[in-house]
Amino acid sequence: MSSGLIITYFGNGKGKTTAALGVALRAIGYDFNVCMIQFIKGEWNYGEIYSSNRLKPNFELIIAGKGFIGILDDDHDISEHISSAKSALEIAKEKINSLRYDTVILDEVNYALKLKLIEERDLISMLQTKPPAVNIILTGNYLTDQILDISDLVTEMKEIKHPYKKGIRAKKGIDF
Amino acid sequence: MSSGLIITYFGNGKGKTTAALGVALRAIGYDFNVCMIQFIKGEWNYGEIYSSNRLKPNFELIIAGKGFIGILDDDHDISEHISSAKSALEIAKEKINSLRYDTVILDEVNYALKLKLIEERDLISMLQTKPPAVNIILTGNYLTDQILDISDLVTEMKEIKHPYKKGIRAKKGIDF
Repeated sequence: MSSGLIITYFGNGKGKTTAALGVALRAIGYDFNVCMIQFIKGEWNYGEIYSSNRLKPNFELIIAGKGFIGILDDDHDISEHISSAKSALEIAKEKINSLRYDTVILDEVNYALKLKLIEERDLISMLQTKPPAVNIILTGNYLTDQILDISDLVTEMKEIKHPYKKGIRAKKGIDF
Repeated sequence: MSSGLIITYFGNGKGKTTAALGVALRAIGYDFNVCMIQFIKGEWNYGEIYSSNRLKPNFELIIAGKGFIGILDDDHDISEHISSAKSALEIAKEKINSLRYDTVILDEVNYALKLKLIEERDLISMLQTKPPAVNIILTGNYLTDQILDISDLVTEMKEIKHPYKKGIRAKKGIDF
């Protein structure tokens, strides 16, 4: 029996969520089903939302997050972030165990860990008890020893050069 | 007028082509058009090929490459690789200048540079003279000073942990 991989994309560079989306696209090419659950960022991922419609019924996008904390004029209370991250984890557990998806993407879950919106032991226990065949992808700019340990594949996306430092704004269709 | 970005994903980690595919998916979400030209790897990207059919007419995949040199039982002559990489560059030039695409992905072009299948000056001159609005994404495990210099955004994908070192084989829908 084929065993699912746990893949982690972390680091301060661009490309983590994007790479997870790319894995989704590739999997859907084989008519596999993919579910992506966003743990933190929320209302402004129009690119993902629009494209996910193109990939139906193989791709399901669940937006549980409430935007990035502390940036982009965040006006949500921390307790709201905690409750939406916790509910994202519950949804993730249900989706993973449903066996309806070959791959489940936990987008920004590592960052949710860093912000202590979810408990590491809850995430690790979910990963330890997942159905063997399901692939899981974790993204977010943070890596704990336990996540490193439980992951089969870990790639660090490292920022080498960033246009916004030169004053160029985020671009529709590229960044969001 | 909005100015296109030159984005480079390099490094020895997984996720370079995958991130480029993710950018394509996001752009297509806005009904933008994307063309992806593969400079090196060739016959075994079934995931990309199948999914690209789902994204038509917004996504065009051009497979110019002949497989990785020196791995995967490569049986092509080096001169064949040079001629297909050179023809990939010609196709790229034509696609970029056609203005029919918002984003053109030059997949593994950096690796083609490393293998000296194409001339760096030809690639740089294509990038310098591109129509301003077009976004270009370069992937491949290599980075020259000139590519770093001309790129707006550069992310290094760094391998931290890799399952194949543990003897796990490449997985359909995840890696290819």
